[in-house]
Amino acid sequence: MRDFSNDHSALALNTATLGHNLDGFGAGWSPEQVIDGCAARGYGGVVFWRREIGANAIAISERAKSAGLKVAGLCRSPFLVGPLAPKDKDAIRDDFRSSIDMAAGLTAPILTIVVGGVEPGTKGMRDSLKLVAERVADACEYAEKVGVRLALEPLHPVYGGDRSCLVTVRDAVDLCNAVNATNLGLAIDVYHVWWDTDLAAQLKRAGENLIYGFHLCDWLSETRDILLDRGMMGDGVADLRGIRHAVEEAGYNGVCEVEVFSKDNWWKRDPNEVLDVVVERFRAVC
Amino acid sequence: MRDFSNDHSALALNTATLGHNLDGFGAGWSPEQVIDGCAARGYGGVVFWRREIGANAIAISERAKSAGLKVAGLCRSPFLVGPLAPKDKDAIRDDFRSSIDMAAGLTAPILTIVVGGVEPGTKGMRDSLKLVAERVADACEYAEKVGVRLALEPLHPVYGGDRSCLVTVRDAVDLCNAVNATNLGLAIDVYHVWWDTDLAAQLKRAGENLIYGFHLCDWLSETRDILLDRGMMGDGVADLRGIRHAVEEAGYNGVCEVEVFSKDNWWKRDPNEVLDVVVERFRAVC
Repeated sequence: MRDFSNDHSALALNTATLGHNLDGFGAGWSPEQVIDGCAARGYGGVVFWRREIGANAIAISERAKSAGLKVAGLCRSPFLVGPLAPKDKDAIRDDFRSSIDMAAGLTAPILTIVVGGVEPGTKGMRDSLKLVAERVADACEYAEKVGVRLALEPLHPVYGGDRSCLVTVRDAVDLCNAVNATNLGLAIDVYHVWWDTDLAAQLKRAGENLIYGFHLCDWLSETRDILLDRGMMGDGVADLRGIRHAVEEAGYNGVCEVEVFSKDNWWKRDPNEVLDVVVERFRAVC
Repeated sequence: MRDFSNDHSALALNTATLGHNLDGFGAGWSPEQVIDGCAARGYGGVVFWRREIGANAIAISERAKSAGLKVAGLCRSPFLVGPLAPKDKDAIRDDFRSSIDMAAGLTAPILTIVVGGVEPGTKGMRDSLKLVAERVADACEYAEKVGVRLALEPLHPVYGGDRSCLVTVRDAVDLCNAVNATNLGLAIDVYHVWWDTDLAAQLKRAGENLIYGFHLCDWLSETRDILLDRGMMGDGVADLRGIRHAVEEAGYNGVCEVEVFSKDNWWKRDPNEVLDVVVERFRAVC
């Protein structure tokens, strides 16, 4: 009888969980060390950030595969609108295409899109979402040619001003339907959607064809830093089992990607400990 | 011909805008000073916080009326669930009733309810919202006897963990419909709802019978403190005209209550300046 105790093939690590070593956080593990640490524990995949890859996309991809790991995705597009986007439309398009190129080089099937906040000079979400739709449609055509799928990630409404005018799964499904490209879907992150009592209905509306990714962490009841104080699964108030059930009921059968930004807790710990705890919590509470 | 230039009867000041003098913020104006400052500028009403009133509800109410101001409301109920609520169900009920008594003494027609976050030992919103419904139903009966209406205020989803398991207008309308009391409705605050592209539809669903209050401020694109860095109208990214239009289209014809928590900006200024700017911005951008 096969022993599943070390089979965590449904689990993927987003490298942000180990502290983004290029920011001075975390233990400074290289992509190769992350790959080895995940492979040793039976993780199914890993998701990298662009700045970790540099010019080594192909080598890192081969290293992951030979270790038995999928490269499950790449983070992320530039902001497409809002105060934090590149300086103009051309710069946004060029950087968007560069991120797609890198995903292709890494053989990452999915590039995550974080759309950016309210476009300067406008009010509310609607005008910004229209600009996003145009820029995503252009990128979908480009990505199609290199076999990359694009996953729109609605962020928590707290980021609505500067980081994402896309803040609900409902709006993200509407945006996918408006763009109507075969390589455009959604990434569902519990940190961003846990509060939404309409979530299950919207996931059902999205269906298996639109759900490209599922991200795990937890929302701490008393969140001290809105960007970098995410909780490990089980330490917060999100209904993780309920959300995972809703995502899978809607037809998703891909990996569960753990992504914990935590500068004052998990990023201060030994990555070996963090990787072990992720596995334990994934088994126990998700 | 009547000169409307000094008629701001649609405008009410929430005293929080001047810095909650009991917290060491703001210039320390007494309720009487606030009343005089608002009356001198032609405001239509004022909304107090419980801690400013103490045992002087009746005297303050009479002072406001003789100055030509409505006491438009009182902030607020205790948290009814979650980690910040009073210690047990009885303590919650008693403090809820005390807040209703004070509203009655003040002849404030409306008491604002902030429901509290996720109840310890539970996950997600649903269990907490059920507890809220029970506790609000009890309070509605009590408030009915003293002629006070209760306004559920859905807060921004960023407060979902600790301060409010009620984070959308949609859920608030559902809660009103579930409790089904004639003195239960909603307070709509642009800070909490500006991001919601479903807002106009939900306000229409609420209708004039359920919308008890409308609060103005703005969401700053780069918000530095999630509790105390609200923007003055016009300084942020919320579509204030669009939201006000939607609220009034739904049938609301009460005052617009300005409530700006701003410890590093507006709370540091002379209250006379703040009261003047509120009037200017209300006229110019709302």
